[in-house]
Amino acid sequence: MIGIGRLSLNQATVHNLSVTDAVKLCVRHGIPGIGLWRDQVTACGVAQAAAAVRAAGLHVSSLCRGGFFTYADRDARALAAADNRAAVAEAAALGADTLILVSGGLVPGSRDLALARRMIADGIADLVPCAQQAGITLGIEALHPMFCADRCAISRLGEAVDLALQFPADAAGVVVDTYHVWWDSQLAADIGRAAGRIVSYQLADWTLPLPQDTLLGRGHLGDGFIDFAPITAGVLAAGYLGYAEVEIFNQEIWDAPPDDTAATVRRRFAELLG
Amino acid sequence: MIGIGRLSLNQATVHNLSVTDAVKLCVRHGIPGIGLWRDQVTACGVAQAAAAVRAAGLHVSSLCRGGFFTYADRDARALAAADNRAAVAEAAALGADTLILVSGGLVPGSRDLALARRMIADGIADLVPCAQQAGITLGIEALHPMFCADRCAISRLGEAVDLALQFPADAAGVVVDTYHVWWDSQLAADIGRAAGRIVSYQLADWTLPLPQDTLLGRGHLGDGFIDFAPITAGVLAAGYLGYAEVEIFNQEIWDAPPDDTAATVRRRFAELLG
Repeated sequence: MIGIGRLSLNQATVHNLSVTDAVKLCVRHGIPGIGLWRDQVTACGVAQAAAAVRAAGLHVSSLCRGGFFTYADRDARALAAADNRAAVAEAAALGADTLILVSGGLVPGSRDLALARRMIADGIADLVPCAQQAGITLGIEALHPMFCADRCAISRLGEAVDLALQFPADAAGVVVDTYHVWWDSQLAADIGRAAGRIVSYQLADWTLPLPQDTLLGRGHLGDGFIDFAPITAGVLAAGYLGYAEVEIFNQEIWDAPPDDTAATVRRRFAELLG
Repeated sequence: MIGIGRLSLNQATVHNLSVTDAVKLCVRHGIPGIGLWRDQVTACGVAQAAAAVRAAGLHVSSLCRGGFFTYADRDARALAAADNRAAVAEAAALGADTLILVSGGLVPGSRDLALARRMIADGIADLVPCAQQAGITLGIEALHPMFCADRCAISRLGEAVDLALQFPADAAGVVVDTYHVWWDSQLAADIGRAAGRIVSYQLADWTLPLPQDTLLGRGHLGDGFIDFAPITAGVLAAGYLGYAEVEIFNQEIWDAPPDDTAATVRRRFAELLG
């Protein structure tokens, strides 16, 4: 359904590798795309990271991440806004398809979800002109509802779509991450509504039990409960032309030899999506 | 907003107590309602449990639980159906307001969520005549999406409402459990759609971090992130006339002296909902 020519490895899947080592890993395994993380890009230097991916002929499918808009404190909000503008510039320098936004949870000291959601909309609106000027489309990501309180108050793809549609298509789109949205009975309908707005398609499986750190509960494709074929079909039918990026947070996978991880990523992708 | 005269203590909050001890605890603390669990009712004997709550003048706001409709195996499905009919009879004998249904996750060996949801709808339809004959309204509960794979494929209140509306109001309604649905941006709208169909209102707070066993992550009202006032206002505006039942799964609370737990439940309820 989606060829290996559109496979991307998100750097978080091989958490211990630098940008240059992750780039070499992708090249060794014939993985044509890479998703980068800002901390690793900073450690490498933005220009050097951009040069490394370009020299290797890799496509940068995403830069992770901007967002965290929900600060009550004015100074903290201004700092976050400045950091988001820097992230847009880095995404542009890297030639990334999108800057992924994890929008932030409840405002500290508040239980008002609607307030958090308004602050997120305002924060994105504030960032849009900068993104347009840089030629970067912001990727609004819905995170699983178990992260609603502390990481992202956008809990369903439908909410991300509603947000994106408030802005021009070149400025804002949505991320479809299977791990976060697979359970949603409205998923197929919301992917349809996202036609022309999907800027990133991320893949990880839902495995159980959840680990103590629930951020690290994702598994290799096929090891869990998600049916990837219908979700992928929907994303493609919605006109998505970009890469499919495997992004797995999992301590065991991080502890495994990166070449084993890359080989498994490639093989499972071919089996389940290819 | 909702008086202490409508407070109910779900027996699971004081997990180590028998029915008779939980009944005595409610009486000591002036808690007029109780939610019962089938395993404890069985240990006590249904008739004895019914007599104990009646003698104490307590109202039985719910019996937990029936459901688990998603078996591929025909024999397992027949066993579950028989068990559900027994649960209806027990709910009727206890004079419970509702039999709460936890509907089951993915069918074993399958990743087809739509199949699981059709089996749940069919399972409820199958149980409805028995419930009507017994005068028991089934309470369809949405569980948090983190339980979608393994416990309940009904993940949003809206799905539970859609299911309930397929049946007569005396046969099927919905459970609003704050812990499971608080994060949902459609919650207020779906509570409105549930007007006349809410058969149970359950309360627990969302606390972080989640424990290793994610079933036990709930906290006393006020210890977490949920804003109870607007949810309660919506439930009341939707015409709910029943009890508000505090149901907290939490090892620390289970290890605490039950009288301390009951006192905290009563005080927090009065502070946040009274």
